[in-house]
Amino acid sequence: MRRSAKTGVKAALLLALATLAAPALADGLIDNVDGMTLTGDGKLIRFNGLLITTDGKVAKLLNRYDKRPEKPDFRLDAKGKALIPGLIDAHGHVMELGFSALTLDLSDTRSLDEAQARIAAYAAANPARPWILGTGWNQEKWGLGRFPTAADIDAVVADRPVWLARVDGHAGWANSAAMKAAGITAKTASPAGGRIEKTGAAPSGVFVDAARALIDKVVPPPNPRDRDLALVRAQEILLGFGVTGIADMGTTLDDWMTYRRAGDAGRLKIRIISYAHGIDAMQTIAGPEPTPWLYDDRLRMVGVKLYSDGALGSRGAWLKQPYADAANERGLGFLDDVRLRNLMSRAAMDHFQVAVHAIGDAANAQLLDAIDELSETYKGDRRWRIEHAQIADPADIARFGRHGIIASMQPVHQTSDRLMAEARLGPARLSGAYAWASIRKTGAHLAFGSDTPVESANPFPALAVAITREDANGEPMGGWQPLERVSRETALAGFTTEAAYAGFADDRLGSLEPGKRADFLLLDANPLDLPPAKLRAMRVDETWIGGQRVFVRK
Amino acid sequence: MRRSAKTGVKAALLLALATLAAPALADGLIDNVDGMTLTGDGKLIRFNGLLITTDGKVAKLLNRYDKRPEKPDFRLDAKGKALIPGLIDAHGHVMELGFSALTLDLSDTRSLDEAQARIAAYAAANPARPWILGTGWNQEKWGLGRFPTAADIDAVVADRPVWLARVDGHAGWANSAAMKAAGITAKTASPAGGRIEKTGAAPSGVFVDAARALIDKVVPPPNPRDRDLALVRAQEILLGFGVTGIADMGTTLDDWMTYRRAGDAGRLKIRIISYAHGIDAMQTIAGPEPTPWLYDDRLRMVGVKLYSDGALGSRGAWLKQPYADAANERGLGFLDDVRLRNLMSRAAMDHFQVAVHAIGDAANAQLLDAIDELSETYKGDRRWRIEHAQIADPADIARFGRHGIIASMQPVHQTSDRLMAEARLGPARLSGAYAWASIRKTGAHLAFGSDTPVESANPFPALAVAITREDANGEPMGGWQPLERVSRETALAGFTTEAAYAGFADDRLGSLEPGKRADFLLLDANPLDLPPAKLRAMRVDETWIGGQRVFVRK
Repeated sequence: MRRSAKTGVKAALLLALATLAAPALADGLIDNVDGMTLTGDGKLIRFNGLLITTDGKVAKLLNRYDKRPEKPDFRLDAKGKALIPGLIDAHGHVMELGFSALTLDLSDTRSLDEAQARIAAYAAANPARPWILGTGWNQEKWGLGRFPTAADIDAVVADRPVWLARVDGHAGWANSAAMKAAGITAKTASPAGGRIEKTGAAPSGVFVDAARALIDKVVPPPNPRDRDLALVRAQEILLGFGVTGIADMGTTLDDWMTYRRAGDAGRLKIRIISYAHGIDAMQTIAGPEPTPWLYDDRLRMVGVKLYSDGALGSRGAWLKQPYADAANERGLGFLDDVRLRNLMSRAAMDHFQVAVHAIGDAANAQLLDAIDELSETYKGDRRWRIEHAQIADPADIARFGRHGIIASMQPVHQTSDRLMAEARLGPARLSGAYAWASIRKTGAHLAFGSDTPVESANPFPALAVAITREDANGEPMGGWQPLERVSRETALAGFTTEAAYAGFADDRLGSLEPGKRADFLLLDANPLDLPPAKLRAMRVDETWIGGQRVFVRK
Repeated sequence: MRRSAKTGVKAALLLALATLAAPALADGLIDNVDGMTLTGDGKLIRFNGLLITTDGKVAKLLNRYDKRPEKPDFRLDAKGKALIPGLIDAHGHVMELGFSALTLDLSDTRSLDEAQARIAAYAAANPARPWILGTGWNQEKWGLGRFPTAADIDAVVADRPVWLARVDGHAGWANSAAMKAAGITAKTASPAGGRIEKTGAAPSGVFVDAARALIDKVVPPPNPRDRDLALVRAQEILLGFGVTGIADMGTTLDDWMTYRRAGDAGRLKIRIISYAHGIDAMQTIAGPEPTPWLYDDRLRMVGVKLYSDGALGSRGAWLKQPYADAANERGLGFLDDVRLRNLMSRAAMDHFQVAVHAIGDAANAQLLDAIDELSETYKGDRRWRIEHAQIADPADIARFGRHGIIASMQPVHQTSDRLMAEARLGPARLSGAYAWASIRKTGAHLAFGSDTPVESANPFPALAVAITREDANGEPMGGWQPLERVSRETALAGFTTEAAYAGFADDRLGSLEPGKRADFLLLDANPLDLPPAKLRAMRVDETWIGGQRVFVRK
């Protein structure tokens, strides 16, 4: 750009340039790096310099003795830092991450006094927020010997409703304004399955289990300004973890409008590969076909997210045989075969990609059957996605290798779920649980994600788990079902090339090859060389998207 | 662009240019024109050549003896044609225009045979359309001596539902498939206020008045592909009439998504100034504030459309005194004062513009009161819009001159409504009816529109009406309430500078001044010089938007 001006390009051309959506009009060189990328076909390339085009794409990977351009518009000497492709989270929930980050967190308070101070400070810092919402309180940790009361909150915030979930999610704590908003009086009866705590005859402020809904139902939905703020926070968190792209698994209309506002205003930095929250949202948002890539490849609705069952912890995962710890339960299939196939068809007929949540082995089998049948009709490059693919019947695993299926799995779920999964499934079914290596061996694509905010959005612990199947404490030593560990390259591919492939974005994202977007991280050390504990603890120094620096660690 | 390449601008810069949303990268000269524009402050400028920047803006207006650039990227010799600013319709319904144009029109059929042939041809030409919808039939004109029947349609279209409104809208004609879809059988009773025509005991296919709803309720809403098609048609019609911008009065979410799909795909040519269909749509679509201008000034949601009353023809307009032809009726105010002000506040507090439909003198008075009060709170440049402002109490007219109010009026309504208005209002109230000149004299802004598809979207008949208050037959000679005629300049301003001002677009649209968008028309003759009959019959030769030709008359 600067050189162009020197060569006398007329003002009108510059004016035209000024209308570019993302004015990344400097070519640049990131030099002296310990650089590494995987390619789409699984090759590992190492390099020493990265040349970036004026429009934020990879121009060339340079080796030590390659000639450097004489006057790039900018040049960064990375002083030997590692440079890797930006990481792509193949399964997350962007807005939920942002909202959870905006909520008052009381989980580390050690006394009611401390909690009260925190509530007061949060209310003061958020004067425009009509309700104060929070989570994480635990009266046991406070040594309180009783539940807290509405009066305890009223003492610090009385002007607006406050509504705080207990650490286990099974109780909520309201102030008087919240109870008033919900119309709760001494006459309000506890609902079935729930209990309104009382002080004498009056409600004390704590609502247990099903009684929580009495307050929940009057909490106002977030307004557009809240949504914009949540996206800002989610983006900050993700960029700070080196996540440059994310598959948003279940984009609602309001989510989408928030992404577009950010894109229209030039505030959207991260790349969002969007899957609509169901068929209606898909049709409303994208219309007759997937949207084009918008905002220089920062947003696209490519498909739809459907659900075939629930989750394992709540015994909602649909199993072929009863739960080991609940002999009469087999979980819940959300959709019968016809309904599932109809929904998948409605997306596939308009060339939307289909991503279906399937946790239990029965749900996975149902989905594999559906893909078998639909692949007859919907030919070509469909990239059917199975989200979680958590518990597979070993007899079904080979079937993941057909029709170009993508298993979209979340490494950290394995360590979080391990003891629970052993209890739910018993020993006989564990060989098909979180079976990353086995599924990949079938020829299926293996994309990795976080399921944020269910788990942390930080992909580095996930990379460590993927190669060890050990948790943060190194348990169990040698790894749980260690045959299902994957190589470092496979783990990294899961968060780069395979995550891009899984979102139909491999033509532009996921690797640092000429012509692809210059999305990359600068790190203190190369993840391929680090022991797992250090890999887990890795902090990103800089995150770059489209040739522009979007995060620098302070 | 070509010259830049010659000067050796590097390939990477060209690549950057290629990513421009609208690659209008040629500067150009439209020469040898009888050119004319009004300016924002009402001056008339005449010119002989129009110089356009590479990004589609007006660079300069040239007089006969001004030096021409030596090598513009393109040059058009207009051979003395008139060149005027693109016309802006200050009040229309873009999607409704498109949908009405896609509907089968039977209004000029002279026999049942002819209607059947037309239905068959339309069905054959629209194989993917699940329902055939149409309008305009009149069995009297056919000399049929009876209502048509379902069997008459079944004979030509039996594979899908067909549902056709009678010319007066008071009856619908269905085929058997439509009746089956609605579950209509011999047992279905006629609803209150409606009648199911019968052949013996069986429903014959015609549904009168309230009975029409029995079929209406099962007509599927348009799908996204239909919507895209409707926008294409609406745009074709508008561009063909020389309309380069339009205020869309009541944009629904589905409308907006259609506009964005067109914008994202580069198919949006016309400029749409959007007013949300109510507060909820406004918040969902635009969020916390008006959107920015999108797609090189082709789309922006700037405000909200509200309704304070109904229409005069159906006696829904809210009058201070009873209808002259219905002594017990005064029409209907849709919102009480508090509710109206609350809705207006909810928009104004977030800096959305407020446009309120007000037809009757009571509705206009209510709205003027509301603007008086809200102007105390919402200061600055608010441009309160009164849509239609059709019947004003003469005592209220002076109040339009306050607070920068915009009267957004539709000239052709005056001629269409004339006899009906005389009947509804009686002679005493006519002096405040369609009172363009009187309202303008107060200092109010006067913007003109069509209310398409209620009236034709063609602005030239509207210009003729504005200066004559005579209809297409020259009736009444000398004009109805001729004191309310306006000058040619005022009429043209209503469709250019004032229409732009009314949509907060006067900083970029509405006149051909340097820096504004090069939106213009080429015409056979200058509208300022033509007798009204010729002005009414004017056909546009070429329509240009942003320096690009978007319509040429064949």
